Amino acid sequence: MKQINVGMVGYKFMGKAHSAAYRAIPMFFPQVTKPVMKLICGRDEAGVKQAAEQFGWEGYVSDWRELLKRDDIDLIDINAPSNAHKEIALAAAKAGKHIFCEKPLALNLADSREMLEAAEAAGIKHMIGFNYRFTPAVLLAKKLLDEGRLGQIYHFRAWFLQDWIVDPMFPLVWRLDKEIAGSGSHGDLGAHLIDLAHFLIGGMEEVIGMSETFIKERPIAESMTGLSAKGSADAPKGPVNVDDATLFLSRFTNGALGSFEATRFAPGHRCTNSFEINGSKGSVKFDFERMNELQVYFTDDAADVQGFRRVLATDPAHAYADAWWPPGHTIGYEQTFIHELVGMMECFGTDSQPVPNFVDGVKCQEVLEAVERSIDQRRWVKISEM
Amino acid sequence: MKQINVGMVGYKFMGKAHSAAYRAIPMFFPQVTKPVMKLICGRDEAGVKQAAEQFGWEGYVSDWRELLKRDDIDLIDINAPSNAHKEIALAAAKAGKHIFCEKPLALNLADSREMLEAAEAAGIKHMIGFNYRFTPAVLLAKKLLDEGRLGQIYHFRAWFLQDWIVDPMFPLVWRLDKEIAGSGSHGDLGAHLIDLAHFLIGGMEEVIGMSETFIKERPIAESMTGLSAKGSADAPKGPVNVDDATLFLSRFTNGALGSFEATRFAPGHRCTNSFEINGSKGSVKFDFERMNELQVYFTDDAADVQGFRRVLATDPAHAYADAWWPPGHTIGYEQTFIHELVGMMECFGTDSQPVPNFVDGVKCQEVLEAVERSIDQRRWVKISEM
Amino acid sequence: MKQINVGMVGYKFMGKAHSAAYRAIPMFFPQVTKPVMKLICGRDEAGVKQAAEQFGWEGYVSDWRELLKRDDIDLIDINAPSNAHKEIALAAAKAGKHIFCEKPLALNLADSREMLEAAEAAGIKHMIGFNYRFTPAVLLAKKLLDEGRLGQIYHFRAWFLQDWIVDPMFPLVWRLDKEIAGSGSHGDLGAHLIDLAHFLIGGMEEVIGMSETFIKERPIAESMTGLSAKGSADAPKGPVNVDDATLFLSRFTNGALGSFEATRFAPGHRCTNSFEINGSKGSVKFDFERMNELQVYFTDDAADVQGFRRVLATDPAHAYADAWWPPGHTIGYEQTFIHELVGMMECFGTDSQPVPNFVDGVKCQEVLEAVERSIDQRRWVKISEM
Amino acid sequence: MKQINVGMVGYKFMGKAHSAAYRAIPMFFPQVTKPVMKLICGRDEAGVKQAAEQFGWEGYVSDWRELLKRDDIDLIDINAPSNAHKEIALAAAKAGKHIFCEKPLALNLADSREMLEAAEAAGIKHMIGFNYRFTPAVLLAKKLLDEGRLGQIYHFRAWFLQDWIVDPMFPLVWRLDKEIAGSGSHGDLGAHLIDLAHFLIGGMEEVIGMSETFIKERPIAESMTGLSAKGSADAPKGPVNVDDATLFLSRFTNGALGSFEATRFAPGHRCTNSFEINGSKGSVKFDFERMNELQVYFTDDAADVQGFRRVLATDPAHAYADAWWPPGHTIGYEQTFIHELVGMMECFGTDSQPVPNFVDGVKCQEVLEAVERSIDQRRWVKISEM
Repeated sequence: MKQINVGMVGYKFMGKAHSAAYRAIPMFFPQVTKPVMKLICGRDEAGVKQAAEQFGWEGYVSDWRELLKRDDIDLIDINAPSNAHKEIALAAAKAGKHIFCEKPLALNLADSREMLEAAEAAGIKHMIGFNYRFTPAVLLAKKLLDEGRLGQIYHFRAWFLQDWIVDPMFPLVWRLDKEIAGSGSHGDLGAHLIDLAHFLIGGMEEVIGMSETFIKERPIAESMTGLSAKGSADAPKGPVNVDDATLFLSRFTNGALGSFEATRFAPGHRCTNSFEINGSKGSVKFDFERMNELQVYFTDDAADVQGFRRVLATDPAHAYADAWWPPGHTIGYEQTFIHELVGMMECFGTDSQPVPNFVDGVKCQEVLEAVERSIDQRRWVKISEM
Repeated sequence: MKQINVGMVGYKFMGKAHSAAYRAIPMFFPQVTKPVMKLICGRDEAGVKQAAEQFGWEGYVSDWRELLKRDDIDLIDINAPSNAHKEIALAAAKAGKHIFCEKPLALNLADSREMLEAAEAAGIKHMIGFNYRFTPAVLLAKKLLDEGRLGQIYHFRAWFLQDWIVDPMFPLVWRLDKEIAGSGSHGDLGAHLIDLAHFLIGGMEEVIGMSETFIKERPIAESMTGLSAKGSADAPKGPVNVDDATLFLSRFTNGALGSFEATRFAPGHRCTNSFEINGSKGSVKFDFERMNELQVYFTDDAADVQGFRRVLATDPAHAYADAWWPPGHTIGYEQTFIHELVGMMECFGTDSQPVPNFVDGVKCQEVLEAVERSIDQRRWVKISEM
Repeated sequence: MKQINVGMVGYKFMGKAHSAAYRAIPMFFPQVTKPVMKLICGRDEAGVKQAAEQFGWEGYVSDWRELLKRDDIDLIDINAPSNAHKEIALAAAKAGKHIFCEKPLALNLADSREMLEAAEAAGIKHMIGFNYRFTPAVLLAKKLLDEGRLGQIYHFRAWFLQDWIVDPMFPLVWRLDKEIAGSGSHGDLGAHLIDLAHFLIGGMEEVIGMSETFIKERPIAESMTGLSAKGSADAPKGPVNVDDATLFLSRFTNGALGSFEATRFAPGHRCTNSFEINGSKGSVKFDFERMNELQVYFTDDAADVQGFRRVLATDPAHAYADAWWPPGHTIGYEQTFIHELVGMMECFGTDSQPVPNFVDGVKCQEVLEAVERSIDQRRWVKISEM
Repeated sequence: MKQINVGMVGYKFMGKAHSAAYRAIPMFFPQVTKPVMKLICGRDEAGVKQAAEQFGWEGYVSDWRELLKRDDIDLIDINAPSNAHKEIALAAAKAGKHIFCEKPLALNLADSREMLEAAEAAGIKHMIGFNYRFTPAVLLAKKLLDEGRLGQIYHFRAWFLQDWIVDPMFPLVWRLDKEIAGSGSHGDLGAHLIDLAHFLIGGMEEVIGMSETFIKERPIAESMTGLSAKGSADAPKGPVNVDDATLFLSRFTNGALGSFEATRFAPGHRCTNSFEINGSKGSVKFDFERMNELQVYFTDDAADVQGFRRVLATDPAHAYADAWWPPGHTIGYEQTFIHELVGMMECFGTDSQPVPNFVDGVKCQEVLEAVERSIDQRRWVKISEM
C-alpha cells in the first residue's frame, strides 16, 4: 500500500494536531505509507471549510456519514468530542474503514468494548491516540525497561498537572460537561497516565481513588479553542459535573505500587505530564514540559559518580532521531502526533495491527471506570471486576 | 532562665545531630537560653564515654535513670531507639524533667497518648523532633500559606524517597525490626510528611493506604551507623517485618486532597523529602536534597513572566538567616536541629510550650495508625475513629 | 502579494529545515503571504531529485543559474555551503530576485559588504538566517529589554557549546575546511551569539579574542549529514584549518561587558546556545537545549520570594503562541525556521524590509573579523576599524 | 602535637566562620590536632569582648601584637581586612607563630611575596583561606581530573556572580575601598576562581582582561556585616575606586583555554561561584549555590543514556562524608571552613606544610596583578612577566 486516503472528523485542537502530522509524514518519514489528506469533516460548514483550506485537505464535508460512503476514503480519523466517538466508530467499522480514534475511546467501558468488538469483527486496523507513548524520551524509558536495565520495578508514580481552570471565572466549556467529555481531569489527563502505566509497567490488579470538584459552578462559555475559552464573568452560571482532580493508588500485576494524580488545579503547571519509575537497578523520571529529556539513574554506576543523568533523547541512539535534527536540536508537541500516525502508516505497509489500539483503549477505560467505582463505593476495586 | 542543663539519652546518629546543635546554639543564637551539655547516656559504656568526649558533654552515664535522679538536669533529650521512648518519657515526666523526644513519639498511638497525658499532668515542657519544620525554605512555605499568598489550598502531595536498602543484601538492621522501630518507611519517613502536612495544611479527615515489603528476608546485621550498616551476605537471614514502602491518600479538613508516599526503594533518591502545594493563588515545591530552595509560583504574576521561582531561602527576609551567612551561602542538614532546639530554648525564656510538641506527636501517630488500619481493613479510615 | 514562488539552493541540513518551514507556513500562519515551493537546486541530480520529492518541491534543477532565469521565481533561498553564498547572492540581486541567505553571509567581511551593496542597489528584500532570534523565549527576553524591565544592562555572557567533534577520529568534514566554511566554531556558532548580542544588547565598541584548534589532523571524511559524518579511522588524514574554539571579550556601545565562547569541544553539550543578561532591574538566562524556557529575575520582587522564574514561553502572552498549541505544549527547533520565514513572508505583505537582513549579516561579520584580527595581532580591535 | 592554641585577628564575617570551624573540629574530626580557642583580637574592645563570649574564645585582646608575645599561642589566624594582612603576618612569622591567613594574601604581589619569604624563612606552617577547594563536590571534580577520568582538558570557564551592590544606593563599604580591599570583585571573587583554576587545571601562561566600575559614587556607609551594610541615601557620597566587574581570558600551561568573570552586578545570583571543565573524556559543572552537587558527564557512557549526572557529593565515596550525615543530608557553607582548618590541623599531626599555602596565595596574586596590568596596558600579559 503506497498511500491511504484519510477522512477526518474534527477540526479543532486535535484536528489541527493530526493535520499537521499528516502534512509532515511524507517529508520526514518518506519510507512509510503516505497519508493523503482527502476530506475533513465538521458540523459548522464555514469553520470546516476554512480548516480544510488552512490545514491542506482536498475537501470538506459537514456530515461524517459522507466519509463512509466514499470509496476513496480508507481511514477515518475521529477527533470529534468524546461523546461522538462511538457512533462514528461503529459506523466506520461497519463500512470497513480503518479507524484512528482519539482518546478516550468512548464515554464508558461498555461503549468502548462495543467499539473494540465492532473493529475486530470488521477486521479493520484501529488505533487510539495515546500520543505520549511516542515521545522519544518515553520510548527510551520503555527501552530501558524492556532491556531489564531498571531491574524489577517497585514504583510507578505519575501525575498530570495542569492549571487552565484554576480561575473560578474560567467558563464552563465542553471539557467540563460530563455528557460530552465523559469525565474531567480523570478521563482527559488520567487516561494518559494510565496508558503510560500500561505501556511501561503492565496491567493493574486493583485501584482505589478519590476525586473532587473544587469549583462547583462556572459561567457558561461562549467558545473554546485548545485549552483557552471565551466567556464573560457576567454570564449565567452552570454546574460543573466532572472532576477537577482525581487521584488513585494501584497495585500492578507485577507487584509494583502505583500512584496517580490528574488535576487541572495545579498553578504553575501548564502541562506537567510526569512520571517516575523506580526499579531494583535504576530509576527514570519524565516531565512533558521538558519532553526531550529523560532523567536516568543506575545503581551500578561507579560509587563516586552516582546521580540522575539528564539524557536529551535527540541522539542517533534514540527513537525517531534519524528523521529530525542533529543532537540537541529538540522537537515539540506535534512530533508526538507525527510519530503516532507514522506508527499507523507503518502498519499499512506491513499489514499489521497498530499499537496502541482499541484493546489498549478498553484497558484504559477499565481502569478509569474501576477508579470511578472505587470512588463511588469507597473501596478497592479489582480490575477483574470490570 | 539563663541556661538549662541537658541530659541526653542516645549517642548515635540522632545523638550526634543533637549534640552538634547544642554546641552551636550559644554561638549562633546567643539570645536564647543556653543549653549546657551535662550528661550523655548510652548502654555501651565504652561507646558513650567516647561520644561524651567527642561531642563535648561534661559527663556520661550508662543508665538513663541516673539522669532523672540528678537535680542539675533540667531537660531530658530522648533519641534512643523508638521502642525506648515511652518508658523514659514517662519516668522523666514523673521526675519533673522537661522532655525533648525524637520522633516517632512511641511505637503506637496508645503509648503516645499516655506520654502526652503524663507530660501534661507533670506540667513540663515537651517537644518532638520534627526537625524538617525548621528548614528556612519550609518556613517560607508556611509564611506564604499563613499570609494567604497561596489562596485556598487544593492539593498537598508529598513523598519521602530514599534508596539505602534497595540492595537485597543490605542487612537486617534495627530500623527494619518492628519491635524496635515500630514500622518501616511509614513511621520513619512518612511521619515527617504527615507532620509537614499538619504544619502546613492542617488536620485530615480520612485516609486510605497501601504498603509493601519488597524484600522479605535479609542477612542479619552486625552494626549500623546513620543509614549505613555492616553485614555479610553469608550471614543467616531474618524476616523483614516492616514496610519498605507505604502510600496513602487523604482528605484534609479544609477540603484539600493529599497524596503521600514513603519508600526506601527509590534508587537515585538519597533523601528526597519533598512536597508540593497547589492553591488558588499559587504553588510551592520543596525537596530536601536542595533544602535551601523553595520553588514558588504566583497566579497573579504578569502574564508574560509566569513561572516557578527558585527562591534561595538565605536572604534577610528568611527565617534564621540573621544567624548564619550572607545570602547565597547555604546551610545544611544540621541546621534543622539547631533551629529546632533553638525553638525549645526560646520557650525556656518565654516560659511557653514549644511547638511541635507531644500533641503534634500524637496527631502524627493518629494518622500513621489510621493508615495502617486502612491497609489492614482495606477501607477508608476516619481520623476521628482513632 | 498573495503568494511568492521560492527557488532554493541547497538541500541538506538547512535545506531540509527551510523546506519544513515553507510547508508549515500556510497551515500555521495562513495570514501571511504564502510561499510556494517551486524549485529546489543541488549539484547532485539524484540527490536533489529525491529531496524535491521528499520535501515537496514542484521541481528541481542542478544549476542555480536556472533559478534566476525563471520569471516565476520571486525569492532565492540560499543555504548552500558558505563559500557559495556570495556568487549566488550577487547574481540573484542582479536578476532582481529577493534573497533569503543562510548565515554566515559570506566567508569574509569584504564579500559580505559587496552582497549588501548589491542587494540595496537592486532594491530587493533580503534576509539572513539568524534563526535563534525567532525562538519565543528569546523574543521574551527582547521584549523585557525593550520595555525597560531589566533596566540598564551590565553584562551579556554567551556561549555556544557543542561536542560533535570531540572524538579525534571524527572525520574532516566540510565544516572543518576553511575554504568552504570560512571558519570553525567561530563563524558557525559564534556568529549566532554575536547576532543575538546585536539583537538584544546592541552594537559593540571593541573586542579581543583567543582561539585554538585542539585536534590538528583528522581522517578525511566520506560524507556528512547534519552534524554527523561517515568516515574511517584508517582514512588518510588532513589538516584541520579552522578553530575548534574561539572566545572573546567585548565592550558594548551602551557600556555593557560581553563575554563570548564558541566551542565544539564541550562534552555533554549537544546544542547549548546559551546566554545570560544582567541589568539593573533584573536578569534573564536562556539555553537552547531547553528552548521553550526563559529564566527571568526581577530585583523588585517581594523580598521573601526573589528568585529566577522558569517561564515557559508557550503562554498566550508569548510570541507566536497563537499559532501553536496550548500552554505547556512545547515547540522545537524547526519552529525557529518557520517563524523566521514567516518574518520574511510578512514583509511581502507589508512591502517592508525583513529583519535581520544583510545589514545584520555585515554587522555580524564585522565582529567575527574583528575578533580574528584581535587574535592575529594579539590586541584589542575596535569595530570601527573594520 | 595533641592540640594547638589559636590566636585570631578579626571577628566579623570571617572571624565568625573560622570560630565556627574551630568549635566544630573536635567533635566532627576528633582524629586531628585539636585547635584551642585561646584569644580573639579586635580593635573595638566592646565588639571583640562580645565576640569572644559568643564564639567561645577563652579571652580577647585589642592589639594583635599581644598575641605574638604570648608563649601559649601557636597559630595566628588572620582574617582582619586585607590591608592589615601583611604587617601581622610578617610579625607573626618573625615571632615563630604558624599562620592561617585569609585571602587575598596581601594588597599586591610584592607584599605577598614578602610574606611568603618571611614565612619560609621562619620555617613556620602557613595556609591561605581558599575555602572553596574544600567543598566535597569540588574535591570530586579534582579526583576525576587526577584520575584522568575527564581526559585532556580543553576548557575551564568560571564565573563568580553576586548581586549585593546592584542597588546604586548601597553604601560605600570597606570592600569598595581600594586602600583596604585592594580591589573589588576581582580580588574578592576572582581570586577564588583563579585559585580553583590553579587547583583543578594548573598554571596559566598569559591573560588579558577587562573591568568596569558601573556605579562611580555611592553614599558613605555607616557599618557593614557580612555582605550587608547600613547607610542612608542622604549620606554624602564618595567615589568607588574598585572594579564592580572584571573578566579575563587565559591560556593554561597545559593548553586549556580559560574564561573568567567576577561581578557583583548579576541580579539573581547571590553566590554563584561556578565553573565548568570540558575534557576529552568528560565534563563537570559546579555552582556553589548548590554546593553539594557536581554535574558530571562521561563521553563513554552508553550511547542511549549519555547526559550530565547530578551527583550529590554526600555519599561514602566522597570527601569528608564520613564526618557528617547520611547520603543526601547536605552540608553548608561553614563546612568549607571546617574542612579547610581540618587540613591545617592535620599538618600539625604530620608535621607537613598545609595546602593551599602562601605559595598558592602568591600564585593567585600573580594572576590577579597580571590581569590588572593587562587591563591597564590593554595587552596580553604573560604570568612569567610578573
